[in-house]
Amino acid sequence: MENQFARPDGRRCDEMRQVSFLTNFAPHATGSVLVSFGNTKVICAACLEKKVPSWMNNLETPQGWISAEYSMLPYSTLTRKPRPSMGKQDGRSVEIQRLIGRSLRAVADLSKIAGYTLWLDCDVLQADGGTRTASISGAYVAAKLAVRKLIEAGELAEDPFTDSVAAVSVGIYEGNVVLDLPYVEDSAASVDSNIVMTGSGKFVELQSTGEEATFNADELSKFIDFAKIGIENITKLQMEALA
Amino acid sequence: MENQFARPDGRRCDEMRQVSFLTNFAPHATGSVLVSFGNTKVICAACLEKKVPSWMNNLETPQGWISAEYSMLPYSTLTRKPRPSMGKQDGRSVEIQRLIGRSLRAVADLSKIAGYTLWLDCDVLQADGGTRTASISGAYVAAKLAVRKLIEAGELAEDPFTDSVAAVSVGIYEGNVVLDLPYVEDSAASVDSNIVMTGSGKFVELQSTGEEATFNADELSKFIDFAKIGIENITKLQMEALA
Amino acid sequence: MENQFARPDGRRCDEMRQVSFLTNFAPHATGSVLVSFGNTKVICAACLEKKVPSWMNNLETPQGWISAEYSMLPYSTLTRKPRPSMGKQDGRSVEIQRLIGRSLRAVADLSKIAGYTLWLDCDVLQADGGTRTASISGAYVAAKLAVRKLIEAGELAEDPFTDSVAAVSVGIYEGNVVLDLPYVEDSAASVDSNIVMTGSGKFVELQSTGEEATFNADELSKFIDFAKIGIENITKLQMEALA
Amino acid sequence: MENQFARPDGRRCDEMRQVSFLTNFAPHATGSVLVSFGNTKVICAACLEKKVPSWMNNLETPQGWISAEYSMLPYSTLTRKPRPSMGKQDGRSVEIQRLIGRSLRAVADLSKIAGYTLWLDCDVLQADGGTRTASISGAYVAAKLAVRKLIEAGELAEDPFTDSVAAVSVGIYEGNVVLDLPYVEDSAASVDSNIVMTGSGKFVELQSTGEEATFNADELSKFIDFAKIGIENITKLQMEALA
Amino acid sequence: MENQFARPDGRRCDEMRQVSFLTNFAPHATGSVLVSFGNTKVICAACLEKKVPSWMNNLETPQGWISAEYSMLPYSTLTRKPRPSMGKQDGRSVEIQRLIGRSLRAVADLSKIAGYTLWLDCDVLQADGGTRTASISGAYVAAKLAVRKLIEAGELAEDPFTDSVAAVSVGIYEGNVVLDLPYVEDSAASVDSNIVMTGSGKFVELQSTGEEATFNADELSKFIDFAKIGIENITKLQMEALA
Amino acid sequence: MENQFARPDGRRCDEMRQVSFLTNFAPHATGSVLVSFGNTKVICAACLEKKVPSWMNNLETPQGWISAEYSMLPYSTLTRKPRPSMGKQDGRSVEIQRLIGRSLRAVADLSKIAGYTLWLDCDVLQADGGTRTASISGAYVAAKLAVRKLIEAGELAEDPFTDSVAAVSVGIYEGNVVLDLPYVEDSAASVDSNIVMTGSGKFVELQSTGEEATFNADELSKFIDFAKIGIENITKLQMEALA
Repeated sequence: MENQFARPDGRRCDEMRQVSFLTNFAPHATGSVLVSFGNTKVICAACLEKKVPSWMNNLETPQGWISAEYSMLPYSTLTRKPRPSMGKQDGRSVEIQRLIGRSLRAVADLSKIAGYTLWLDCDVLQADGGTRTASISGAYVAAKLAVRKLIEAGELAEDPFTDSVAAVSVGIYEGNVVLDLPYVEDSAASVDSNIVMTGSGKFVELQSTGEEATFNADELSKFIDFAKIGIENITKLQMEALA
Repeated sequence: MENQFARPDGRRCDEMRQVSFLTNFAPHATGSVLVSFGNTKVICAACLEKKVPSWMNNLETPQGWISAEYSMLPYSTLTRKPRPSMGKQDGRSVEIQRLIGRSLRAVADLSKIAGYTLWLDCDVLQADGGTRTASISGAYVAAKLAVRKLIEAGELAEDPFTDSVAAVSVGIYEGNVVLDLPYVEDSAASVDSNIVMTGSGKFVELQSTGEEATFNADELSKFIDFAKIGIENITKLQMEALA
Repeated sequence: MENQFARPDGRRCDEMRQVSFLTNFAPHATGSVLVSFGNTKVICAACLEKKVPSWMNNLETPQGWISAEYSMLPYSTLTRKPRPSMGKQDGRSVEIQRLIGRSLRAVADLSKIAGYTLWLDCDVLQADGGTRTASISGAYVAAKLAVRKLIEAGELAEDPFTDSVAAVSVGIYEGNVVLDLPYVEDSAASVDSNIVMTGSGKFVELQSTGEEATFNADELSKFIDFAKIGIENITKLQMEALA
Repeated sequence: MENQFARPDGRRCDEMRQVSFLTNFAPHATGSVLVSFGNTKVICAACLEKKVPSWMNNLETPQGWISAEYSMLPYSTLTRKPRPSMGKQDGRSVEIQRLIGRSLRAVADLSKIAGYTLWLDCDVLQADGGTRTASISGAYVAAKLAVRKLIEAGELAEDPFTDSVAAVSVGIYEGNVVLDLPYVEDSAASVDSNIVMTGSGKFVELQSTGEEATFNADELSKFIDFAKIGIENITKLQMEALA
Repeated sequence: MENQFARPDGRRCDEMRQVSFLTNFAPHATGSVLVSFGNTKVICAACLEKKVPSWMNNLETPQGWISAEYSMLPYSTLTRKPRPSMGKQDGRSVEIQRLIGRSLRAVADLSKIAGYTLWLDCDVLQADGGTRTASISGAYVAAKLAVRKLIEAGELAEDPFTDSVAAVSVGIYEGNVVLDLPYVEDSAASVDSNIVMTGSGKFVELQSTGEEATFNADELSKFIDFAKIGIENITKLQMEALA
Repeated sequence: MENQFARPDGRRCDEMRQVSFLTNFAPHATGSVLVSFGNTKVICAACLEKKVPSWMNNLETPQGWISAEYSMLPYSTLTRKPRPSMGKQDGRSVEIQRLIGRSLRAVADLSKIAGYTLWLDCDVLQADGGTRTASISGAYVAAKLAVRKLIEAGELAEDPFTDSVAAVSVGIYEGNVVLDLPYVEDSAASVDSNIVMTGSGKFVELQSTGEEATFNADELSKFIDFAKIGIENITKLQMEALA
């Protein structure tokens, strides 16, 4: 039975790394958290800006926006990763920050932050696989903390979030479907999935990518089963952090 | 019955737009095609460069690379879209060109183009929804034409491609799952999927995204069924174009 | 007699390559054409934008503007030409797009498009010498098609163009003055002229450049004679395309 | 007597805020520390790269280099500070990172890291005045931790550091010379000094700047006296952190 | 008779402004001159660099290169002109520096500076029309001074220049063809010509441009006659400066 | 006795090079000067712009601003120094232009130029050490000349300057404290100070930097003594130039 497969860190195939949320990590941010998925650690911070992207100015019904920035600190990897140089943008970071923004917007009623942009900054302090899924899961906690503080301060009338959101990776490593891949598995995986779901079990985003490889419908089905296990785990811990 | 749903252009829910491949469209490229998915038209060109990305130089087994660039010509949209200005990069284009590259690499044996980069340029001449899926489907044809010419010229020993690859969009439009969305549907869709599959029916990439919306497992299952219909259609036309 | 000189493609010294204009090539543009000068093929598209450069805002008499962009598609040359990278601009392209803009403005009454910019995009699909002269000649056709459609739609009151405009290259190749140089001649020419004239035979721009060489008054005189032959030929075909 | 002056946070004029060094804060870096000067918190990380700036390649005696990067995380300030946009550099950050690099080089024998660059990354997590002096003081600790680990691993033969280095700010706030200014004082100070000294009491750098104001020799003398008090305090804590 | 036309500064239509060459203006350059065409003043400096553009590395016969940079100092105009900002290039400057480079190369035997680039920097100190023609005329003097010093120092074996080169502007101002236009005429001219000729009377470059205007063959002929007068005048003064 | 130390150019340790101010060097600027400190020559120009930085728009009391730009002309050094390339900024230039701006603002009452920015451009024509101190000293003269002309023209009501400002370098060269270091001394100095003072003897800025070296309190004291001698000398010549 495949769950007997020995993963490098001894976990079962459908087992998450230890996940934790350390709140108020960056006290000048309105809401902030240090999220850990095992050794992967990401600073997530939420700040509200009284401004919307220019294309929103002509909307009939005024709305707000949620925008994310993702960056790896140079010392987050074992070999120092230079900061993005002027005039060059890193395609991977662009993809990830767009994904974080979409994921949070999928569970928000943007009319409740009309005229505002909620910024979500995710800076990776330590990278060991799954930085994007940790970022999404942490960004939700930071966002909720910020919203709570803004409501207490009378700056927001209502909570725009209608559900929680979290994300996990699933992949095929040495022929086995495994949940929440650390770097050692991720870098050798033939297929890599990132699945974003709400706390109530709906899909927000599903990205399955063969790295010079393909996958079939059975594997896809297993990705989804494992993802549900991971998302439930994270959702529970998000609720505790926000309690 | 849902296939009775009247789409703006009269198609059934699971029906592709007319797809065509006009080969040798840019004769200075080694391989080229003008691919049309209805009114969406993309110039796809393939060229071989004797050079690999610098990170490949230290690989034990020498390999080649497949890299893509995607761009919308300013007059491809009904309102002129300015060219990307200096120092600013367009996140959407970055995502798409990375997707095109990954899709082609998934069906290639890169050791057979060791030391070379196969460049795939996709320039959108007319945009009406589905430019990324048309680009992937056309890039495969351009790449195969280039490979054939390079083998004839003795510059390549073997065809690196082990399968064909094609892509389609599926989405939820006015509550219905529909295949191959033109702009009018795409811009109003609540969920948008892009599915890349091989000619032999394996998945290469599956991206389902809720636009400020979510989706469930039944809908995901239907996305996959419709995608298979579309991919089969395109694959057949790719084979004819290459015959 | 020098016209006996055998050119690589067998033309007489004062003979144009086959010129053609394929209209409506990019249907989303207001006006568009694929212009061919032999194997040189350029997509020319015209679009109107309701905006003028900021320095025009304070003019006493309101005016419009005509602006051009010129770009070579990466696969237009036999060796792939990388897209202009971020933060670097290509001096040659800058010169050419300024020349296209000036040429069209010379035959336009800009007060008739007051408040608007007419954009002319010229993308080279296949490059075989004379891309700038083909671009100017094609841009005029695209611009006229756009104007016609805008007048029909009631968006413009009058045609701003007071004359037609076309351009040809003349040069000294292997000691002989020759008209409309393809790449094989152009790359070896000691003197290179680009001459822009109106349909009524006036000069708009004359640029004669010695490439590490000089020229004398007799040669200049012959450049002008040959240019007139070429311009007449192109003007006739422009009129037919617009008929 | 001026030390009676009531500072906003109740400190004496010559009293430092609470300073602390939390080591191994970013475990993937070779050496790292979270340095706090009161509410100012900076992540300092040190990494060795096997490469020197190109101008060092032709030195007769091979040397190494020490280079610093300084950045404020967007959520380090009470109002979100956007990340530096492409193509624009922030003059203040450039000044600070040059100062950090010079300060560390002043206490290093660069021949002992010949062929290597020691990178010092300083990312401000929370900004409340004195981020550059905290950065220098923390960078020294991170650098020493890295050197120790590199010597243990046999990658460096000797410790290049010949002395310790630390920095404090002194300024004139409401007419009083004060040590280690938090933001509330710094933003209102008429004169601002940053003084970098070695553990053995020598000056490395002295920068006194009137902000639309001037200062006299007596004030300069007092700046130096206060700085010595602060440096001694910090040096002691650096030694404890490294013990 | 048209030469009776009263120009704003009282000159005859075919009369140059006072031209002068003040040599050794920037003593650290190998050769330098301050060239004045009336109130237009340009610092021209020549320096040799032991390096050629990378595309020259594979030439069968080794060659050298001549490259120019042109810039307007911010205070050269009556209203301060900001320095070119990062990531934006000024099309006009690009055109001019390419023209200066071509003009000097046309009178040089590049094989005599094989392996070297001769840099010509032209910085406009005061702008009053004709900055590009003054730059070319001054660049020749700076280049010759540099060559002379390099030959004396034994760094060059032979003078690469085979002829002298100079440039003048001619234009149509208030309906009259006039030579060497100052700003007041240039900004109102309907046609603007820049003509580059050798000391021996050959053309190097001829650029005639209608500014929203056209010109005929008679006018072109007069441009050339006037240009010859101007070039002879400048050539004589160049020889005196170099004597 | 240390003043017996033989400096390369024969000066006493506390002796300035010959300083001169050649006014009206760039006549299109409102005020300009060519300042020389020995062979170091800098063009300083002052221009007024009717605009303030955007952060000043919300000040309760309207103010003006003084901003500086510093640049080395490529031929100012014995080896040609390339112009700053696009997208890269030179840290040293950024530091210097910020220093020039602060120095001038320290002796100005910015409310007297409310709504305006006074631009100070400093372009180094010849670099032989001390370009930043010459720039500050010259910028003051250019600024005063501009102010005088603006008052005469009725564009300014009052002189914003309340004192004069000048700057000198002092350093430790071969173990001796020396004043106003030329390049030969500066490049070998172990400690480098730049001291900015007002004509009335107050400090504006004091920067002492060890270059991989440190300094002690006695040396700092001597820096200040020597600086006063230099500043008095320069101040006297500034007054003469402005008389």
